Amino acid sequence: MRIRIVNPVARGILNEGALPRLPEFIQAEIDWLPEGPTSIESRYDDAIAVPLILDRVRKAAQEGVDGVVINCFMDPGLQAARELVRIPVAGPAQSAMLLAAGLGQTFSVILPASSGTPIVVDQATVYGVRERLASVRSVGMPVAELVQADRLVAGLLEQAGLAVSEDGAHSIILGCTGMSHVTERVKSEFAATGFGAPVLDPTLAAIGALLGWRVLGVAHSEKAYESPEWRRPLS
Amino acid sequence: MRIRIVNPVARGILNEGALPRLPEFIQAEIDWLPEGPTSIESRYDDAIAVPLILDRVRKAAQEGVDGVVINCFMDPGLQAARELVRIPVAGPAQSAMLLAAGLGQTFSVILPASSGTPIVVDQATVYGVRERLASVRSVGMPVAELVQADRLVAGLLEQAGLAVSEDGAHSIILGCTGMSHVTERVKSEFAATGFGAPVLDPTLAAIGALLGWRVLGVAHSEKAYESPEWRRPLS
Amino acid sequence: MRIRIVNPVARGILNEGALPRLPEFIQAEIDWLPEGPTSIESRYDDAIAVPLILDRVRKAAQEGVDGVVINCFMDPGLQAARELVRIPVAGPAQSAMLLAAGLGQTFSVILPASSGTPIVVDQATVYGVRERLASVRSVGMPVAELVQADRLVAGLLEQAGLAVSEDGAHSIILGCTGMSHVTERVKSEFAATGFGAPVLDPTLAAIGALLGWRVLGVAHSEKAYESPEWRRPLS
Amino acid sequence: MRIRIVNPVARGILNEGALPRLPEFIQAEIDWLPEGPTSIESRYDDAIAVPLILDRVRKAAQEGVDGVVINCFMDPGLQAARELVRIPVAGPAQSAMLLAAGLGQTFSVILPASSGTPIVVDQATVYGVRERLASVRSVGMPVAELVQADRLVAGLLEQAGLAVSEDGAHSIILGCTGMSHVTERVKSEFAATGFGAPVLDPTLAAIGALLGWRVLGVAHSEKAYESPEWRRPLS
Amino acid sequence: MRIRIVNPVARGILNEGALPRLPEFIQAEIDWLPEGPTSIESRYDDAIAVPLILDRVRKAAQEGVDGVVINCFMDPGLQAARELVRIPVAGPAQSAMLLAAGLGQTFSVILPASSGTPIVVDQATVYGVRERLASVRSVGMPVAELVQADRLVAGLLEQAGLAVSEDGAHSIILGCTGMSHVTERVKSEFAATGFGAPVLDPTLAAIGALLGWRVLGVAHSEKAYESPEWRRPLS
Amino acid sequence: MRIRIVNPVARGILNEGALPRLPEFIQAEIDWLPEGPTSIESRYDDAIAVPLILDRVRKAAQEGVDGVVINCFMDPGLQAARELVRIPVAGPAQSAMLLAAGLGQTFSVILPASSGTPIVVDQATVYGVRERLASVRSVGMPVAELVQADRLVAGLLEQAGLAVSEDGAHSIILGCTGMSHVTERVKSEFAATGFGAPVLDPTLAAIGALLGWRVLGVAHSEKAYESPEWRRPLS
Repeated sequence: MRIRIVNPVARGILNEGALPRLPEFIQAEIDWLPEGPTSIESRYDDAIAVPLILDRVRKAAQEGVDGVVINCFMDPGLQAARELVRIPVAGPAQSAMLLAAGLGQTFSVILPASSGTPIVVDQATVYGVRERLASVRSVGMPVAELVQADRLVAGLLEQAGLAVSEDGAHSIILGCTGMSHVTERVKSEFAATGFGAPVLDPTLAAIGALLGWRVLGVAHSEKAYESPEWRRPLS
Repeated sequence: MRIRIVNPVARGILNEGALPRLPEFIQAEIDWLPEGPTSIESRYDDAIAVPLILDRVRKAAQEGVDGVVINCFMDPGLQAARELVRIPVAGPAQSAMLLAAGLGQTFSVILPASSGTPIVVDQATVYGVRERLASVRSVGMPVAELVQADRLVAGLLEQAGLAVSEDGAHSIILGCTGMSHVTERVKSEFAATGFGAPVLDPTLAAIGALLGWRVLGVAHSEKAYESPEWRRPLS
Repeated sequence: MRIRIVNPVARGILNEGALPRLPEFIQAEIDWLPEGPTSIESRYDDAIAVPLILDRVRKAAQEGVDGVVINCFMDPGLQAARELVRIPVAGPAQSAMLLAAGLGQTFSVILPASSGTPIVVDQATVYGVRERLASVRSVGMPVAELVQADRLVAGLLEQAGLAVSEDGAHSIILGCTGMSHVTERVKSEFAATGFGAPVLDPTLAAIGALLGWRVLGVAHSEKAYESPEWRRPLS
Repeated sequence: MRIRIVNPVARGILNEGALPRLPEFIQAEIDWLPEGPTSIESRYDDAIAVPLILDRVRKAAQEGVDGVVINCFMDPGLQAARELVRIPVAGPAQSAMLLAAGLGQTFSVILPASSGTPIVVDQATVYGVRERLASVRSVGMPVAELVQADRLVAGLLEQAGLAVSEDGAHSIILGCTGMSHVTERVKSEFAATGFGAPVLDPTLAAIGALLGWRVLGVAHSEKAYESPEWRRPLS
Repeated sequence: MRIRIVNPVARGILNEGALPRLPEFIQAEIDWLPEGPTSIESRYDDAIAVPLILDRVRKAAQEGVDGVVINCFMDPGLQAARELVRIPVAGPAQSAMLLAAGLGQTFSVILPASSGTPIVVDQATVYGVRERLASVRSVGMPVAELVQADRLVAGLLEQAGLAVSEDGAHSIILGCTGMSHVTERVKSEFAATGFGAPVLDPTLAAIGALLGWRVLGVAHSEKAYESPEWRRPLS
Repeated sequence: MRIRIVNPVARGILNEGALPRLPEFIQAEIDWLPEGPTSIESRYDDAIAVPLILDRVRKAAQEGVDGVVINCFMDPGLQAARELVRIPVAGPAQSAMLLAAGLGQTFSVILPASSGTPIVVDQATVYGVRERLASVRSVGMPVAELVQADRLVAGLLEQAGLAVSEDGAHSIILGCTGMSHVTERVKSEFAATGFGAPVLDPTLAAIGALLGWRVLGVAHSEKAYESPEWRRPLS
């Protein structure tokens, strides 16, 4: 299975090494925007990046890949992309939230900064799992600082512990794809605490969703995402 | 009060004459995108138009207007615009839905085409009034055909009647700002049927929301819409 | 626009000076119950006052005003009044809650005393915005003491700050029309704290709602509020 | 157990013979308003009757009864009465809805006239069982005509059948205490149809609720219904 | 009225003396599993016990009792039992939750151990009162230790107080039928604290539900609980 | 990846040939109950089978498989099994519903017989996706008749079409693992109708869920599913 991972930022902070280790039977290709923001941390950043993302998604479909991951936790352009192409398109936030909903009753999301909280609440609401969202927490680090691995791991472990003990979270979702470089470390260190809550990497969740769809031979519903071309030719 | 109405399409189908009559104490300025789609009928159209819309909203704020209406029922870029500027920004769909929620228990939205139904359901969900949405109906006309006033009025009256009698709607929302040229006619003809459900023009609802905010001296919450500039300088 | 503000108490504690400053293009007339409680602080108080309120609303309609505000945060008799007259009738709580729902995701209400908490929860539930209610807080002052402006302001600022920082409120609603005499002071002092959450005066919210309805040319839905006269002559 | 049944109307249409047969171990006393409407069919009727009802509830408590039923499906004054007295006070609608919620997933309410539909929806919402309400139907008869037993039974059987087959109702609630004179007949005839959905008399549901509370030795919560006397002496 | 109380455990810890005092007009017969777990503290315990419980329920119906209580707060086999027999079958958790929903807006459940929290949340969700559940708390005692009455009472009083003051509970539900031996003591001591929230014994709640159904002459809906025999003969 | 598929019935109607084609990189082992019902069509059937299922799940974990599917749409014993073992356990209904929630807004489930409707509604409620459930429909065939492939396909196509056109379904879930032998045929024939809604095989959905969990290296949460052994040794 050949998957195109569209990083919706210009190549910079998040280099290839920052992606999580992928299963061997998945052939992942990484794509970057030719220009664009170095990170997406607000609805404004999201809005500006989306037209560029949609171009990369269309290109991926034309090149015959089996599925696309829009690799940012804000799922920028996810629904528009699903109107544009019929190959499966998955987003890290939606995928992680629905996966978490199957592992227990509740999940918490840990963000870089608290300004994103209302955005995550909107996501959980639109994705239909608002009642499952135990809390949104943050490590208080702008995306540009997420490369500081030790500080990031310490913040994630602290907030994950509080999410479980204070907020009743059954699972923990890492709320930024820029955290993937520490996923394995957080998973093993958090497991050692005995809190008993799985830690979910959102990029892997999106890949897992594509894989699951593949097993069933399905893609997103045309009834939910009608093509704009059905209404008039696209410019 | 000086309001800027940003039409998120290139000047074309929807000319000035198509706007509803505004109250006299409101000074409304109409703006158009310099380029862009002739209509917004899908999430894809929305995504492509938003960066252009955000430019116009920023310009409006720089020019000192008291509030902005993004004049399309998809409320394109509404949340991003609210991050960008501190003057009030209102969207027709959100404004009409919250206004309708105060007139009765339920409302129905009548769209040009049924392909927009999932989009309206997402809006009602994010705006917190999903339970109030009795139904989404459509007149089966692409936006380009909405200039056919008689056909449009007939379709709206038929669907509004069904929304009340079949779906239990207490109010009717016209689900496209391109329907404004027939609002008055639909209102008076529907009132004559005795169905007893108000008919809401979405552009006027957005203007009414700005007016209400003005009475209270408030704008959208900075806690909900933090400025992206607080994180880093905008490019 | 000529609005009748029905104060659902006998003239006493709340004199004209306690009302918020109104926009100039609104002609507001203030009415008082000829007798009745000096304040409404329980469902019992509400129940006793309602028949008297309905008389004043009917009188207002007969005298040709353009809209009525029932000026108490319990919205006493709001729904019954809407059955009785076809001119617009607005309530401070419903108006403030729906307006707040458009400014951000969540709002908190600050009451005089905590005994009113379940009542506000019921209101938010019936008005369809229960999920938007971040919290109900109180300043621990009976209505009769609200004239102590300094103590009231201090209490409101403290609780508003906690509502934002602890409960995640995006907006603050003053939960008693008897707090209007300090609205301007609380707004400016709270803005100075940098919390970034708008403060809403409920009387102004009701006036704003009437104004918004006026812009659209609508009143409450007859489908939601059928006239009792349609069933039999009123005694 | 000594129960006072407060009929919130002046003695008239609904005479004693119209009450359902009560279990022998319950001593029921029937009270009427000295004046007031002959029926309660709107929120306006409800509002006018409530002060009179509260007087009768206070009197019942002073006379030492063990519990009170406010015998109208609109539950007029139920919450205010619970503030006023510490003996248990039950309402037919709340009791029937919560009882139905234990018999299956869904219930439908059959009203005299469709104008009451929004009121029942509000009740189900405030009582926390809105999701359980499959539908609200009506027999299209004003309360004054409910004495026409054959016509009423025919209408109830027809609507109950549709509620089950079309709306998915698991139980049927008779939505007016003025229907009690045909409860037994409707129950037996509907059972004979094989639809398999219980039919609930609302007056009996309120009595059953009082009985259940008695078994546990509880009354309504003081936290939910604080006495207005705790704030100031009642006039 | 003759009620069969099926204790879904082997006779052991919970002897007859541990049951709450029943009203005199109820003839209660206590049944025990011939074998089985000594307590039910997990979904696994529940699953193992259910086939044995269903045998006892069928036997009770064959012996002509008027109703059955499955006397464990996990309501083990409640829905399956209702498919199996047409005599009323009640469960302590469902009965207590629906009864509490009528006493105020919210309730808290106090469990032996926190491991049961997700189970109670599932119950409240399926029973349709999830929004009414203020919190789930626990005294941190395995069921086998609940016989230590003083420690149990102290734990319950502490958690009940926190449920009211911290979580906003209007009523308190004892979340294990093995707590019934201290119900009276907790009720009187908690009432003395002035918190004003009723304390509910779940076994009595189930008996109260059966009594209420008796008053109306109803049992669980056949539409909700179709007999498996209607599909094929049971083995 | 080595998956054990536990068919919770005795070998009979559903033979190996009836399973859907699995992806090649999955090594699936099929297990059957040594005894038990030939089908599970009611909560009673479910209850009787669960202890036998739990034995097979425990055995699977002891034999070192990587994950277990309990292969019945009622997900019998799913939550108890997750308490019992730490290897991933998936159920067809939960997996299909959460997968469908990612493909669009709504899904419909098509059952063999309508008696299962309340059970599916309970499942969607507990799994947190009740609002996504557009409808539950049935082909009116007992499980024993599902081997009649032509009749089954005709019924599924008819009901799937109605689910999309009448109920607004965006995806279709086959609501019985005994329908898997016609999944491919229904998928291709339904796709040819142009309805544009994916058709989901529930067994494959459970396998897809296990695969997704594998990509992330997670299993169900210990916080949601505490081991009963943590409380006392299992008998």
